[in-house]
Amino acid sequence: MTTYARPLLRLLEALEKLPGVGPRSAERMAFYILRASREEARQLSQAVADVKDHLRFCEICFNLSEAERCQICQDASRDPSILCIVEEPKDVLAIEKTGAHRGLYHVLLGAIAPLDGIGPERLKIDELLHRLSDGTIQEIIIATDADKDGEMTAAHLSKLLRPLGLKIT
Amino acid sequence: MTTYARPLLRLLEALEKLPGVGPRSAERMAFYILRASREEARQLSQAVADVKDHLRFCEICFNLSEAERCQICQDASRDPSILCIVEEPKDVLAIEKTGAHRGLYHVLLGAIAPLDGIGPERLKIDELLHRLSDGTIQEIIIATDADKDGEMTAAHLSKLLRPLGLKIT
Repeated sequence: MTTYARPLLRLLEALEKLPGVGPRSAERMAFYILRASREEARQLSQAVADVKDHLRFCEICFNLSEAERCQICQDASRDPSILCIVEEPKDVLAIEKTGAHRGLYHVLLGAIAPLDGIGPERLKIDELLHRLSDGTIQEIIIATDADKDGEMTAAHLSKLLRPLGLKIT
Repeated sequence: MTTYARPLLRLLEALEKLPGVGPRSAERMAFYILRASREEARQLSQAVADVKDHLRFCEICFNLSEAERCQICQDASRDPSILCIVEEPKDVLAIEKTGAHRGLYHVLLGAIAPLDGIGPERLKIDELLHRLSDGTIQEIIIATDADKDGEMTAAHLSKLLRPLGLKIT
């Protein structure tokens, strides 16, 4: 025995692909799973599979959704003329908890981050411009994060959207 | 929408049980999995399941094994009179790579760590004493880690094993 058995090697390899997981933490996690009850391991394995089988990004706003269109995009009582732009689905969740926004959302699925090699083309900006093209949306609220990447993204969006003559906050 | 969809909540819960994974890193991992290809998610889900289905701890030495007894315990060419005691299966691997040990192993599956509430009763020490009871093993090499927990474990074992009249290194 000069290397781990193949099932363990495959698990280590899969865990190391997760963000923030290096070889040592992958090893700790793998041994935890090995010692966990069969039921606990089954729950993890099933949860990973389920999330791919039952969740997707909404085809309109890229929020998380169990259907092709998310609950918010399907909700006829929301004001379709106001659009709030956020970075991630969790931001939608945070704003919904406040109950302060009655319009729709557009989730960029990230922020511009030059240091990580993430340019505007990696975000859902083309899809945003396409949404704006039919004239329904008249007011835009840019609610990207207050950090450097979020502010750079907000500045980029402002420059891009200003010529369209929308109200931008 | 004031909370994540159930499949995502279940995944977050399962990920947070892993060692070193808090709510924020669980969220990062979950969104990574959501955006990963279906194939990559399947590999992770399958790897977690496979490791439980195809790997276990050897019934004699508690090394990792694909069968009830590990390859080393099954190997008739190893010297059954020399036993090397280690903390984890990865230590067996490291020693095997050096090729310096021709005897057998006993894996404690941990070290005494009072700060983490891990006392000797949580380790495979009763099983070790049981193995020693038939008199085959005559020499013991204690190869726990060089850190504080490892040294405390080594001291505990020495005290326990000395009365048995074995050669201890």
